[in-house]
Amino acid sequence: MTIGTSIPRVDAYEKVTGRAQFTDDMILDKCLVAKVYHASIANGRVVSIDTSKAEALEGVVKVVTFRDVPDTKFPTPGHPWSVEPAHQDVADRSLLTDRVRYYGDDIAAVIAEDEVAASRALKLIEVEYEEYPPVTDPLTAMKGTTPPVHEEKPDNILAQSNYELGKVDEALEASDVIVRGTYDTPIIQHCHIENPVSYAYMDKGRIVVVTSTQIPHIVKRVIGQALGIPWGKVRVIKPYIGGGFGNKQDVLYEPLNAFLTTQVGGRTVKLELTREETFCNTRTRHSIHYDLVMGVRKDGRILAKDMTAVSNQGAYASHGHAIVANGATAWRHMYEVENVRASAYTVYTNCPVGGAMRAYGIPQFAFAGECFMDDAAYKLQMDPLEFRKMNVYKGFFADPFLTPIAANTNHVVDCMEKGANYIHWKEKRAAYARQTGPIRRGVGMAIFSYKTGVWPISLEISGARLVLNQDGSVQLMVGATEIGQGADTVFTQMAAETLGLDPADVHIQTNQDTDVTPFDTGAYASRQSYVTGNAVKQCALQLKEKILAYARTLLNDTDRELTLDRKMIYMDGEEAISLEEVAMESYYSLTNSSAITAEVSLQTKDNALSFGACFVEVEVDMKLGKVKVLDIIQVHDSGTLLNPQLATMQVHGGISMGLGYGLSEQMLIDPKTGRVLNGTLLDYKLQTALDAPDLAVEFVEEPDPTGPYGNKALGEPPAIPTAPAIRNAVLHATGVAVNANPLTPQKLIDAFDQAGLL
Amino acid sequence: MTIGTSIPRVDAYEKVTGRAQFTDDMILDKCLVAKVYHASIANGRVVSIDTSKAEALEGVVKVVTFRDVPDTKFPTPGHPWSVEPAHQDVADRSLLTDRVRYYGDDIAAVIAEDEVAASRALKLIEVEYEEYPPVTDPLTAMKGTTPPVHEEKPDNILAQSNYELGKVDEALEASDVIVRGTYDTPIIQHCHIENPVSYAYMDKGRIVVVTSTQIPHIVKRVIGQALGIPWGKVRVIKPYIGGGFGNKQDVLYEPLNAFLTTQVGGRTVKLELTREETFCNTRTRHSIHYDLVMGVRKDGRILAKDMTAVSNQGAYASHGHAIVANGATAWRHMYEVENVRASAYTVYTNCPVGGAMRAYGIPQFAFAGECFMDDAAYKLQMDPLEFRKMNVYKGFFADPFLTPIAANTNHVVDCMEKGANYIHWKEKRAAYARQTGPIRRGVGMAIFSYKTGVWPISLEISGARLVLNQDGSVQLMVGATEIGQGADTVFTQMAAETLGLDPADVHIQTNQDTDVTPFDTGAYASRQSYVTGNAVKQCALQLKEKILAYARTLLNDTDRELTLDRKMIYMDGEEAISLEEVAMESYYSLTNSSAITAEVSLQTKDNALSFGACFVEVEVDMKLGKVKVLDIIQVHDSGTLLNPQLATMQVHGGISMGLGYGLSEQMLIDPKTGRVLNGTLLDYKLQTALDAPDLAVEFVEEPDPTGPYGNKALGEPPAIPTAPAIRNAVLHATGVAVNANPLTPQKLIDAFDQAGLL
Repeated sequence: MTIGTSIPRVDAYEKVTGRAQFTDDMILDKCLVAKVYHASIANGRVVSIDTSKAEALEGVVKVVTFRDVPDTKFPTPGHPWSVEPAHQDVADRSLLTDRVRYYGDDIAAVIAEDEVAASRALKLIEVEYEEYPPVTDPLTAMKGTTPPVHEEKPDNILAQSNYELGKVDEALEASDVIVRGTYDTPIIQHCHIENPVSYAYMDKGRIVVVTSTQIPHIVKRVIGQALGIPWGKVRVIKPYIGGGFGNKQDVLYEPLNAFLTTQVGGRTVKLELTREETFCNTRTRHSIHYDLVMGVRKDGRILAKDMTAVSNQGAYASHGHAIVANGATAWRHMYEVENVRASAYTVYTNCPVGGAMRAYGIPQFAFAGECFMDDAAYKLQMDPLEFRKMNVYKGFFADPFLTPIAANTNHVVDCMEKGANYIHWKEKRAAYARQTGPIRRGVGMAIFSYKTGVWPISLEISGARLVLNQDGSVQLMVGATEIGQGADTVFTQMAAETLGLDPADVHIQTNQDTDVTPFDTGAYASRQSYVTGNAVKQCALQLKEKILAYARTLLNDTDRELTLDRKMIYMDGEEAISLEEVAMESYYSLTNSSAITAEVSLQTKDNALSFGACFVEVEVDMKLGKVKVLDIIQVHDSGTLLNPQLATMQVHGGISMGLGYGLSEQMLIDPKTGRVLNGTLLDYKLQTALDAPDLAVEFVEEPDPTGPYGNKALGEPPAIPTAPAIRNAVLHATGVAVNANPLTPQKLIDAFDQAGLL
Repeated sequence: MTIGTSIPRVDAYEKVTGRAQFTDDMILDKCLVAKVYHASIANGRVVSIDTSKAEALEGVVKVVTFRDVPDTKFPTPGHPWSVEPAHQDVADRSLLTDRVRYYGDDIAAVIAEDEVAASRALKLIEVEYEEYPPVTDPLTAMKGTTPPVHEEKPDNILAQSNYELGKVDEALEASDVIVRGTYDTPIIQHCHIENPVSYAYMDKGRIVVVTSTQIPHIVKRVIGQALGIPWGKVRVIKPYIGGGFGNKQDVLYEPLNAFLTTQVGGRTVKLELTREETFCNTRTRHSIHYDLVMGVRKDGRILAKDMTAVSNQGAYASHGHAIVANGATAWRHMYEVENVRASAYTVYTNCPVGGAMRAYGIPQFAFAGECFMDDAAYKLQMDPLEFRKMNVYKGFFADPFLTPIAANTNHVVDCMEKGANYIHWKEKRAAYARQTGPIRRGVGMAIFSYKTGVWPISLEISGARLVLNQDGSVQLMVGATEIGQGADTVFTQMAAETLGLDPADVHIQTNQDTDVTPFDTGAYASRQSYVTGNAVKQCALQLKEKILAYARTLLNDTDRELTLDRKMIYMDGEEAISLEEVAMESYYSLTNSSAITAEVSLQTKDNALSFGACFVEVEVDMKLGKVKVLDIIQVHDSGTLLNPQLATMQVHGGISMGLGYGLSEQMLIDPKTGRVLNGTLLDYKLQTALDAPDLAVEFVEEPDPTGPYGNKALGEPPAIPTAPAIRNAVLHATGVAVNANPLTPQKLIDAFDQAGLL
């Protein structure tokens, strides 16, 4: 039994000692360096470009512009592709463009012998623009602009979707209390440690790209699409990566990098973004505006809900509508409400591009939805915990449209009770009820539900390969990616579990290479331990079967039952032959040798909802507008814990991101120029280790029947509930409902002032 | 049809442009450098060693000596291992030793920050020896020495073997003519372009060695044996390599390199040999001494043959007795003689170590055996061509002991006739019969037979894996190694042939990585296109079957016949669906996706004899003792030619090596000190492009029934017959029989002088 034990991370030693090789560590010899020339306006068109001075600079090898790239539009999001057009993404990107859609759009690129020459050359490129006024607010943009951000969408609406369950208007009519709320979330950035970096070269007429990505097999496909070449001509290698959080679930500059090597005869070209480029030119978490309505019976029972959500997509589609739509789907989960309606819009603007970020639209949705729950409780004069308990689904429920998304197991109530006990909810709600001093305390909470994989919205496919070594240990290969989350460690445990091995005898191949690695779409959603875990399990079962079949030939084809455990094969329960002996025979038998390997490629057609709750206690300095988190706990219902220590660390990381989302993080964009005002780690206020209180984590464990080892989502959920829980605690402390995160001092002082508290 | 066409080498562009990455090109960052401290005596024992001054030198990280290494003896040859002890090799090596057995034996190693520090440190190591007189001649050594080279073999005889077919003594008695001959061959070195080089580091508690080897999977095993660690803890990667010719079919310094990284906490340690070390400290082609006897009927029919062969093994067993035994086996092939006897000895001496070299004992045997055939013909006053024709097997014959080694197809007579026609044998034999001037001409010939693989002497196992890409192209992975011979190109052709693809749509993985590459014992014998070709074919058939099965689901499970050709699937002969469409569905079908791959691990239990002939015309300058080759042809019967241009290039390379073996190459060893006297490329006389005449090549093609594509051995055979053909041409030109190669001016002048010709 290794599932459920806290074995150390398999990559811990390499990472702690600095020995792990990241993309930039792997570049051989002297390579060429590329830099991108970014637009210095947010909306307009290039009228002329002069690269002659840049080309004349010593050390410059080549300058390419929008004129040189293929006339092909391609999609960038790291979604599973499908042969069905309805499951394909919007193709609105060019490698380089003369139509500038946001401040920093990509117009040209310089390839030089070194970074200094490349940087200098950028300054020598001369561009004249025809400028249009930028639009950064989606509510404005959706009224239409001239010209539109993309010609194909005159009203700038990339997509719109809606649904209705029951009869919302009638139910609202019949309600005792109507609650309304408007909520806004900011644009934030992932701030992974390692900036996007790749290098590309040609080998035997094919393009090889080594890149810090979560999705090597998808990068391969998108490079093929972007360059208009057969996908088999592309090879993508993914080394250790320094975080992604969804930003690297997008195909960023790999297609341009791939194109650039073809422009210099296949020489190695490196393309590494600066931190400033990472802020402006990669992806962000969408800002979403929510208008919510709720009809409640006077006993607190919710009768109807209505949501309108408008998402600021920025200049290109990327993951686009899937983000806001994910929240619209979650709007009908968790709380048992008969009449539910949602309408969601995704709108192009001249902002940096929104993409995937940990929990994919749900942190935004949960901020709105869980603030709204507290606002409703406040209006109903109910305890927010009791209000939630009354309305949540208990036990099984299923999504009405998206079968098989369902709560196969559901312990959201247990999570709430554990969290409430920890934080002393009842006592503190009472104790902090009526405060008046300059320092006030409050407790708040939020809950959530979250899907594990993406089926049936997208295809779920995963693969694994196992090779039996001579000593009875195994090599494990997966196409899924370790991006810091511990995937390699739990895959190792899974193979060990099914094969009855010590995890030290499972050697996982950490790097993915699309030429040899089993096909898998990579790290996103909270899918890998669920979907790829399925492949690892089936592959291990297949290997075990082959081992036992081979052992059977050595044991003279006995038809007695053979089992494998701890490197021993048992016959009817008695030791028969060691695994090592079987392995050695399979390699080296003079009469019957055949090395034992197994490989599977599997589609997963299951999905499962995870649940959890967050409780916080805060102290608010009314005069400074400062919120101090005194205590915080998250309690998760994510099925069987594969590795409790890693699970706890996932939650720690998620809480930390949530603290930033709740209190300090936001990308500020100047509405006049469309320019990012704080795109550096100095100006953008990330939470650091010093900002974090002690983080408490608890779990309610029940094996999910669809998870390969009883597990369901835990990767993203911890990023969801912290921000609304903090906001609700501040509401408790002060009586002031702040409807937009982050709760910065400036925003709180304004709100306290408006409430007459200052 | 791509088999039989001369497609360009798949690695041509990368190699010609210098883009191909060899081991030394791949070393990342700053690595540590190791150098070996070699003994400066040939026989003795280290009495004391002082490394303190070396350790004190700036830049030196560590010095290890024979005291620090595991007390384990291990075998080094690149033979397939077997679980059966009779098929395991002699384990007589230590990583470092205090018992010095040859000049240059490995006593200690220095690990330093750079090469300069490492080299300086070597000079600061102080060693005192107890010295014994060296023995370099096996005929002396086998009488016994005190002490013996290895304690376990008091008479220095590593191994002895013999067989007798029929009744040799009686048949000799009954013969009309008895011919006797004594022949000697020199020690030579492979002189591959790239010296042995490797680097090693630790990753997740395992040892990774990147090395220029022919046999990565065997290197993995031997490192495990040498360090006494589980074999699964070792990973070996083989990049492009700059030649091997059998020297890299031995595990050279990889185990020491692996050990050294464990001594510095897993930091990367590089170990690159100098050319001088490559001469002295790697492997050589054995020098073998032959005493041959033949009984012939007066019409030229051979009635009996007897051979005694003594092989100079040098200080360690390496491939050992297999080399001379291979000649003893060949002694009973090719010529149809009823009574055959052989006795072979392999003897330890204090010389550099003999190992594998292209054609594995047969160049030595063929020099003796084919000179002997001419000497017999001379004595019988028969034409050597007619004498051979009379005695060779025509058509099928099989080895009496080693089933299934056999001549399934046999065109040795056709080869002889083609060669004789080309060289105008009859006319020139007559024209040059009686010459007296200072410049004389002659024509000579030699023939051979040669096994393709090693079964049943050793296990033959090979593996392949194929992955279908989205565009219908495929990735091909094999554990067999491209070492310059063109293996990757013919494997590509094979997969293309069986899958009906253009070779450009087969992407072969050129580097082997034992963690992921299918198991295969590597490049040696002439096995790969025969044995690994078998795996490639079966794997391609399996992939095709899976493609058609998947296509059948798309075509609504029709039971009509499906076939695949040129990326199109036909149903009862009519176009049904493209391969690309099937591939795309397999990756991206919403309902039924499963990426298509295939893998096989196969044992091959076939073997086949190839044949060939060499004819040369020489001009001998009697006063200078110089032989000029005016014209040369080799004609080969090696089954179907997979790629005629590559086949021709193999023969060109083999002829060039044969010219060196016949005329100029020999490692000179001082019998007093055991020291190599000419271990540099300046002193050791390799043939260069300038020394080669035009090389003519012809083939007789009949598909071998056991070859996967009708092919049989061609890798090594071209290295066999040139040297004896030259010697026999000199005999024809001068009447002088020189019984030891190479035919250097010194040797010829002595011989001419002795014959009274000067």
